Amino acid sequence: MITAEKLASAREEAQTYFERAGIVLRPDEVEGTEVADFGLGELETTGLELITYVNTERVCAKELVLFPGQTCPEHRHPPIAGEPGKEETFRCRWGSVFLYVEGEAITAPAVNPPAGRASTYTVFHEVILGPGEQYTIMPDTRHWFQGGPEGAVVSEFSTRSRDEADIFTDPEIQRATQVE
Amino acid sequence: MITAEKLASAREEAQTYFERAGIVLRPDEVEGTEVADFGLGELETTGLELITYVNTERVCAKELVLFPGQTCPEHRHPPIAGEPGKEETFRCRWGSVFLYVEGEAITAPAVNPPAGRASTYTVFHEVILGPGEQYTIMPDTRHWFQGGPEGAVVSEFSTRSRDEADIFTDPEIQRATQVE
Repeated sequence: MITAEKLASAREEAQTYFERAGIVLRPDEVEGTEVADFGLGELETTGLELITYVNTERVCAKELVLFPGQTCPEHRHPPIAGEPGKEETFRCRWGSVFLYVEGEAITAPAVNPPAGRASTYTVFHEVILGPGEQYTIMPDTRHWFQGGPEGAVVSEFSTRSRDEADIFTDPEIQRATQVE
Repeated sequence: MITAEKLASAREEAQTYFERAGIVLRPDEVEGTEVADFGLGELETTGLELITYVNTERVCAKELVLFPGQTCPEHRHPPIAGEPGKEETFRCRWGSVFLYVEGEAITAPAVNPPAGRASTYTVFHEVILGPGEQYTIMPDTRHWFQGGPEGAVVSEFSTRSRDEADIFTDPEIQRATQVE
């Protein structure tokens, strides 16, 4: 649950990040910025702000904002409707993002999962992206990511997005944002 | 055919457009900027400068530059390998782009095809895009586009790109750039 006030303030803050990244948005896009708190009501630590440019049967493109230290929690995109899951490429445009995926775990990760939720984070192969750097996450691969000290603006290029089909490691998470 | 000198100078010029659009590129991306003259040797009028961020089996993302008045000539993306053709969304980031697709033709287009090549341009449904505006071109749909008076930077989000399969209306066109 998120209050309407908090949602509006996160939208406004997200806009300042898009501006810093030099990304031009239409007024309807700014107004429609999605604020995801993943049902935890801890937006500062677990959350994501995003704009979806296009989402057809085959292609999706989004612009993501992570506030400093804000984490998009661990999840994967399973196969659906006879197709492999969503494939996504993250390209950092501004700031930095700490991305963790399946693979050899780093012994001392550069950042930690949100306090009190560490048990729901299981993959620790570390990828750090600065402006101009990118990484492709193949379908059905667990991953999570966190904004660096200044936050991050990240472009996502992917196959069709079906957020409602995402499987989160944390059973408390609900993908659809509910406004109080 | 394009000379190595002209190619280098177009790459350098393209970089100034990416900078104006606030797009951060890695040195290897700048160096690898593709300059397409479509085999006509008339880059100022018929050409395109581009960087491909990602091109997997399912998803492609590119950044395009059109110099002022420069035209990407009319073509379509036919079905291939049992799949529908390429679907692409153009999002203007900077400047303006004049896009023409199949559909009801406008009586007085805002811009003209390159001089001497008008007979190879057959679609005139006009779409004008400024920063933040976008348009999705469905598979196998003829289209062409031209940079506005200041030029344009355009993000392209699409299914897999197979440039070699594109069908151009102008039979003189060769998609692969040949350097003298």
